[in-house]
Amino acid sequence: MATIDPAYFDENARTAPATAERQIACIGDLELESGNVLPNVEVAYQIFGSLNADRSNAILVCHALSGDSNCAGWWDRLIGPRKAFDTNHYAVIGTNALGGCQGTTGPSSLSPEGRPWGSSFPAITVGDMVAAQARLLDQLGIPQLACVTGGSMGGMQALEWTRQFPTRVSRAYITAASTAHSALQIAYNEAARQAILRDPDWASGDYYPGPGPVHGLAVSRMIGHISFLSELAFTAKFGRDRKADPDGWAPEFQVESYLNYQGDKFTKRFDANSFLVLSKAIDGYECAELPAGPRMLFTSYSSDLLYPSHQSEAAHQLSIAAGRESAHHVIETPWGHDAFLLEAEEQTRLIRAFLSG
Amino acid sequence: MATIDPAYFDENARTAPATAERQIACIGDLELESGNVLPNVEVAYQIFGSLNADRSNAILVCHALSGDSNCAGWWDRLIGPRKAFDTNHYAVIGTNALGGCQGTTGPSSLSPEGRPWGSSFPAITVGDMVAAQARLLDQLGIPQLACVTGGSMGGMQALEWTRQFPTRVSRAYITAASTAHSALQIAYNEAARQAILRDPDWASGDYYPGPGPVHGLAVSRMIGHISFLSELAFTAKFGRDRKADPDGWAPEFQVESYLNYQGDKFTKRFDANSFLVLSKAIDGYECAELPAGPRMLFTSYSSDLLYPSHQSEAAHQLSIAAGRESAHHVIETPWGHDAFLLEAEEQTRLIRAFLSG
Repeated sequence: MATIDPAYFDENARTAPATAERQIACIGDLELESGNVLPNVEVAYQIFGSLNADRSNAILVCHALSGDSNCAGWWDRLIGPRKAFDTNHYAVIGTNALGGCQGTTGPSSLSPEGRPWGSSFPAITVGDMVAAQARLLDQLGIPQLACVTGGSMGGMQALEWTRQFPTRVSRAYITAASTAHSALQIAYNEAARQAILRDPDWASGDYYPGPGPVHGLAVSRMIGHISFLSELAFTAKFGRDRKADPDGWAPEFQVESYLNYQGDKFTKRFDANSFLVLSKAIDGYECAELPAGPRMLFTSYSSDLLYPSHQSEAAHQLSIAAGRESAHHVIETPWGHDAFLLEAEEQTRLIRAFLSG
Repeated sequence: MATIDPAYFDENARTAPATAERQIACIGDLELESGNVLPNVEVAYQIFGSLNADRSNAILVCHALSGDSNCAGWWDRLIGPRKAFDTNHYAVIGTNALGGCQGTTGPSSLSPEGRPWGSSFPAITVGDMVAAQARLLDQLGIPQLACVTGGSMGGMQALEWTRQFPTRVSRAYITAASTAHSALQIAYNEAARQAILRDPDWASGDYYPGPGPVHGLAVSRMIGHISFLSELAFTAKFGRDRKADPDGWAPEFQVESYLNYQGDKFTKRFDANSFLVLSKAIDGYECAELPAGPRMLFTSYSSDLLYPSHQSEAAHQLSIAAGRESAHHVIETPWGHDAFLLEAEEQTRLIRAFLSG
């Protein structure tokens, strides 16, 4: 198997400091696909690199469920000067997804009544996330994207971009994504949701300004981390290494310590209601047909059991059926779903050829 | 893929009524591998079929984590008249594992102080489970087993039988098991444990006679059910079938409904502390070497991601290294880990040849 970089398991090592400050755009009222109207929507965004004179060099990066607008941080292996998405040539724009909790309007934002939305925040869709991003681009005066990209939930948004706005995108690079969640993906999300919903501190969603269901959210994140890695990656990193002598129910094995650390850390940066809203949005997403549209590049990962390669292949085939130019590459890797954040070498080679071709 | 029998997903359809009543044996004080002594241990057992005159026809069946002594119920595809473990010829003995909650001494049993053990129940091992079973066989006057068998946690017990008592067992049939849990298996168990430990109703383990951490236990069971099935099995059964129009956070997809149903049902028959104690026992188990011993038959399942075939192969190789006669068959199936309960045809063929060979 490939060597696993120890830095992979240290989230901090993966998060380079952002060089572009986060800004907030007010995009006004947003009519949702449900017909509901979300008033006074704000979208957090960051731009890495500079827009050229005709604003034709913008790349929009859509994040995975737990991500944020700091795409040069969580995707620092691909975004930066002389990297795959070269900020010396492109203006790389990260936004926080609608429903999120990192600056864009979501359940923890204030409603017009002056208190956090909480349980009254409406259900949203992947299409709504994309619509909010399009409004932001309108404000920034960007008529067309050189590329839209993302992995996992971000890949679903990028795919939806090419459906809703097929002429507003020149290229789409989509990795570790799906046209629709399988029952297994929904199952992972539902177990994670129930960990939150069944925590009494969730309080039907109206727990603000308290910390909310931190234990349920921590468990939901542990479930997520299990689904992100392959058996081989777990074994390579943790094996059966013990942390200490057993002491009651405290973590005994290193892998237990890792899961609890990741789970608890997540509660300090993420809102439980955002997890509920975003996970429901991606579970509900279905892309059964595409119009003619941009050039497409898909990648998937041999050991990704959460978003297996056949899902990317299905999206690629939809693109072909729509008459688009499309390619799909399966990257051999032991890193499971997280490979889209980590396997920089082959992604870089493919993306460079794709953007310059 | 193979057709999936709809009855598979109905646990009731899998549980034939037991024909042999449950009995309780008092096996006295049991010294544990830790050095602690568990006083006045009771073991619940059921015998399907009749012991012959020299008591040489006994087969001991060890259950998986959530099982019980009613082996002719949960393994009804393999145990019964004219089935693989033919109760017309063998006395098939099921016991409830030490630490369990179906009649054998466990955390919900009364301690000598007259109240449930709860948080004071000692840590136990797979070796302790086997030692308790051996005491039961002493009481029943059974000097040697024709076969010891089990799947998953039950397979680890059967393997341990052949290590602790290599001359007391003629044959061992072990399915979907492991010599030691991988980091991924520990991860699944730890997420499930944390769902319980972080439920305030767990109350540090001293929640009796209350219902205890029912929501945490339900979530832990949902995590389990995700690990038991393959992606293909989930898709074949549930696809993206919707249960109803979305109504708040109630299950929308059939797979969500299934998980919640299984989770909630589990809380009515299982004790959360038993889950903690048993899951820690199997996470801690390590079999690195075997003595010379009985004939061994291993099976594993192509789509089992929880107890993958390479783990059964490792146990088979340990047996070979010990000079035992041993075979390992990988059964092609889409049913994941649960296949050991379901794939009756090939198991039956292999077991019949093994027992008569």
